[in-house]
Amino acid sequence: MDIKAYMQSVGIGARDASRALARASSAVKNNALMAIANQLDVNRNAVLTANQVDMENGRNNGLNEALLDRLALDDGRINGMIEGLHQVSELPDPVGELTDLGTRPSGIKLAKMRVPLGVIGIIYESRPNVTIDAASLCLKSGNATVLRGGSESIESNQAIANCIKLGLADAGLPESAVQVISTTDRAAVGELITMAEYVDVIVPRGGKGLIERISADARVPVIKHLDGNCHVYIDDNADIDKAVAIAVNAKTHRYGVCNAMESLLVAESMAEKVLPLIVDIYAAKQVDMRGCARSCEILPSISVASESDWSEEYLAPIVAIKVVAGIDAAIEHINTYSSQHTESIVTEDHERGQRFIAEVDSSSVMINASTRFADGFEYGLGAEIGISTDKIHARGPVGLEGLTSQKWVVFGDGQIRQ
Amino acid sequence: MDIKAYMQSVGIGARDASRALARASSAVKNNALMAIANQLDVNRNAVLTANQVDMENGRNNGLNEALLDRLALDDGRINGMIEGLHQVSELPDPVGELTDLGTRPSGIKLAKMRVPLGVIGIIYESRPNVTIDAASLCLKSGNATVLRGGSESIESNQAIANCIKLGLADAGLPESAVQVISTTDRAAVGELITMAEYVDVIVPRGGKGLIERISADARVPVIKHLDGNCHVYIDDNADIDKAVAIAVNAKTHRYGVCNAMESLLVAESMAEKVLPLIVDIYAAKQVDMRGCARSCEILPSISVASESDWSEEYLAPIVAIKVVAGIDAAIEHINTYSSQHTESIVTEDHERGQRFIAEVDSSSVMINASTRFADGFEYGLGAEIGISTDKIHARGPVGLEGLTSQKWVVFGDGQIRQ
Repeated sequence: MDIKAYMQSVGIGARDASRALARASSAVKNNALMAIANQLDVNRNAVLTANQVDMENGRNNGLNEALLDRLALDDGRINGMIEGLHQVSELPDPVGELTDLGTRPSGIKLAKMRVPLGVIGIIYESRPNVTIDAASLCLKSGNATVLRGGSESIESNQAIANCIKLGLADAGLPESAVQVISTTDRAAVGELITMAEYVDVIVPRGGKGLIERISADARVPVIKHLDGNCHVYIDDNADIDKAVAIAVNAKTHRYGVCNAMESLLVAESMAEKVLPLIVDIYAAKQVDMRGCARSCEILPSISVASESDWSEEYLAPIVAIKVVAGIDAAIEHINTYSSQHTESIVTEDHERGQRFIAEVDSSSVMINASTRFADGFEYGLGAEIGISTDKIHARGPVGLEGLTSQKWVVFGDGQIRQ
Repeated sequence: MDIKAYMQSVGIGARDASRALARASSAVKNNALMAIANQLDVNRNAVLTANQVDMENGRNNGLNEALLDRLALDDGRINGMIEGLHQVSELPDPVGELTDLGTRPSGIKLAKMRVPLGVIGIIYESRPNVTIDAASLCLKSGNATVLRGGSESIESNQAIANCIKLGLADAGLPESAVQVISTTDRAAVGELITMAEYVDVIVPRGGKGLIERISADARVPVIKHLDGNCHVYIDDNADIDKAVAIAVNAKTHRYGVCNAMESLLVAESMAEKVLPLIVDIYAAKQVDMRGCARSCEILPSISVASESDWSEEYLAPIVAIKVVAGIDAAIEHINTYSSQHTESIVTEDHERGQRFIAEVDSSSVMINASTRFADGFEYGLGAEIGISTDKIHARGPVGLEGLTSQKWVVFGDGQIRQ
């Protein structure tokens, strides 16, 4: 197989389809989403059979249990995919929205119009449900998509791709509106991330290693989500009950998620009051605690943190604890070690809260709330394609709007430049 | 000189300063702009003397007249720079603006806050006035800047950098808020565009070659302006007077600008009526006309266009003319050959206008107006750092808002995730 030629044809198909999608009405796009849901339902046995092949190959190739679990499909997961398609069809369509409408001194009327980005390439691990997730958000936002899932999920993805193709045809949209790459050859990824004439943006989803590799080699802009090293800072003026509840929720509500807190910072004046309360709860939940010298003084039972702990995204029942002089030291620590995902201050002092929000350079900054709120559903985006830790284009949870851009539209009546 | 070590120290200085700038009030930033204007005025002789050195070196090195003209400073140009600083100080400050404020079912209050990008690297040719232009827009939008002008302007830029440094100090801002690279070694550019830990975005200003080179090598996101191959399409239902006025203005108002029309498309049904009128005016202005076979039939005096003419950004008194079947062919031609900068349709048909706007994938799309309106001043941005032909982040003229991003801010009262 000539990978370069294959990817060129995928690119041309995507670019062509992107034009049909850009002018497709919300009704047509929603019909397509529901037709795909229907095809998934009708063809669920074919999808499950394909998934069995992937699972067997995975077991034979020694995939670990966590990876096999992500790979596995069953009726419940297929129902979840169908439900997801219906949910996305119900979200408001961002495309075509006009904002900032005004008349300029020259007499031209000017506005910004929200438009699809064009063609979005998505590279993800062996999780077949992401194929439907990603395709549905891109379709709803009027973008053509090229999907490249992990090679362990190739059979499942091809079966799902077939359902998508049938659904697109049912709705009268071009089949190349959503293309799932049919080869596991890694050279296809190399082509996808460098063919800027056909692809407008790449969204990698997966581990940090994958995302760093893709970002390094891409010649197409990348919307990326690196790690979530999130902080909670308990200020001098914190309410103790809120501080305990937030520190516990942000760390222990779920461990393996990017918006979990990894480091807890506490103002010196509060440390002796609040830390023992929090640490008791962590201990009961068997959280491994690693503290600075001052924390270890207050809490003799915890172990000593090393420098690398401040940068770590544990994604596990581990927490780093540091006592700081006050808000300045907290902001300094966060801006030094944070991955700019999400940080929260617990304080009853309005001015301190405002300072924290202005000076902490992260995609979500919170006052008196758990970092766990940083996600597309909690923010009301309906769904998210990822959480951007980049600063340009989209920061934080990226929903339909993050998959669009704005162009300028000018309505004249024959105006010429003087 | 150890370029890597030097650029690291520049990067660290910029990152540090970006934090001070992010929390600086509008008043402090405006004071700094006016203090820089004052220092430029007070030190104008030093700047002019330094410029003389550059001019002499330029002449000795055989710089052509056009380049020498861009390099030259005189009292008028310095007054222009001072005036520009005052104008930027009067623009509204985008930083801190809260939008999309709402309360979520969890009880958290959510908003988006406009914030600076952080550190912006600007690479430009030997035009010393760009040093002030770029520095002032970045400063006003709360960003630290690292500036790298063309090597022929090194003495002028260092003298201007000194004025900036003095002005920043007068206003109590860190001197590293605006840094002008003091070496002409090209390795400095290589460092600047790859040090993602210190630089958030690169804005290259200059010729297509420079921008393509930088985009290819950058590891930092680039906001780029490639060419402006702009089109006017005269539809079947065009008003003839408007069509002639717009086609003439878009091509001949100024030739060397990116928003000048390069190709004129005319619907078959209008060609015999409107083309002779336009061509007479082009001929009087000595515009070189290159037409498709059908255009040459109607206009025997013009020469035959080759395929490459449709892709060309002439930046000169040259125009390509094509007769097309109608709006579908026009949109197809534009989406194939355009550089996605600016396109305009001339039509009295509302629906056709709407279709053109929806389906033409360019940063500015116009109805019945000259493409020459596509710029930051005409759009009311006050000033522009460039015109983006990218699709993510900012499209079209990029003003202060394009140099910012939005972060999410959450105001809670102790909320935790259930």
